[in-house]
Amino acid sequence: MKFDLERSIEVLSATPATVRALLESLSDDWIASNGDRESWEPYDIVGHYIHAEETDWIPRAKVILAQADDRRFPPFDRYGHFGRSDGRSLLSLLGEFDQIRSENIQTLRSWELVDEELELTGIHPEFGEVTLRELIATWVVHDLTHIRQIATVMARRYEEAVGPWKEYLSILK
Amino acid sequence: MKFDLERSIEVLSATPATVRALLESLSDDWIASNGDRESWEPYDIVGHYIHAEETDWIPRAKVILAQADDRRFPPFDRYGHFGRSDGRSLLSLLGEFDQIRSENIQTLRSWELVDEELELTGIHPEFGEVTLRELIATWVVHDLTHIRQIATVMARRYEEAVGPWKEYLSILK
Repeated sequence: MKFDLERSIEVLSATPATVRALLESLSDDWIASNGDRESWEPYDIVGHYIHAEETDWIPRAKVILAQADDRRFPPFDRYGHFGRSDGRSLLSLLGEFDQIRSENIQTLRSWELVDEELELTGIHPEFGEVTLRELIATWVVHDLTHIRQIATVMARRYEEAVGPWKEYLSILK
Repeated sequence: MKFDLERSIEVLSATPATVRALLESLSDDWIASNGDRESWEPYDIVGHYIHAEETDWIPRAKVILAQADDRRFPPFDRYGHFGRSDGRSLLSLLGEFDQIRSENIQTLRSWELVDEELELTGIHPEFGEVTLRELIATWVVHDLTHIRQIATVMARRYEEAVGPWKEYLSILK
């Protein structure tokens, strides 16, 4: 499938409601963080979504669109949500994600991007030149990556409970 | 995490709204079936959820609870939704999934299962004796498996569009 801005916005718009529907009525047993920076739980992942809205996608898009002499992206701290979310309820984080995502989609729409702009580039700290089109496509895939991760870490809680079915459930491998 | 009936029902109750939030506003480019029985698209997966509600979880639980001489489960046809869903819109399937899932949760609740009943067994066609507890845990994990699958097959549509980020996105591997 070729990149399409409207199709991308469809997914970006759906993510906060999807994550909310999945998580908002669950007990802490399913969602609570264990504070482990390398083993994220649903609570941590919602914090990570918000942190990326604040410091990754739109800020990087602005670097590209500015086309200044220095087109290097500000670094993204993938642990930045630890600490930032301390003491917040999951419901409060879900509300914040909803809010900031919808503001960011408004910003994205307000740019009325045309093909030439989508071809503009910035410099990623690890792999160099990337286009605005690739950045937005990655925003979409990143959303889906973490929906997948939430489903996976939840499923693993029942790894023993499923008994012999474990062999048949690829999500548990 | 130990199996818990109420915790299980939390996830079972959330799935139809989650799948709806993710898919209901997307274009066909993201969701349409390609008719390939071995490569399911979001449309196919919603059909599969419904088919499993009709012929797998509750019917098998009834076999266990009946404790008749023959405790073998009726076989489940994992391709049963092909054909069954023909000509239906995704929105219509999402509505049907919502409806049948909520009926099945009502049925499950109406049984007021106690520990002794959760230990009762039926005979799975491939791996023999399984308990009602394992069946219900598998119902939950199966829900999460297919949320994960929907996210994965959607993400793959942007495999090329993300450019060099592909290396960093495990969902594309």
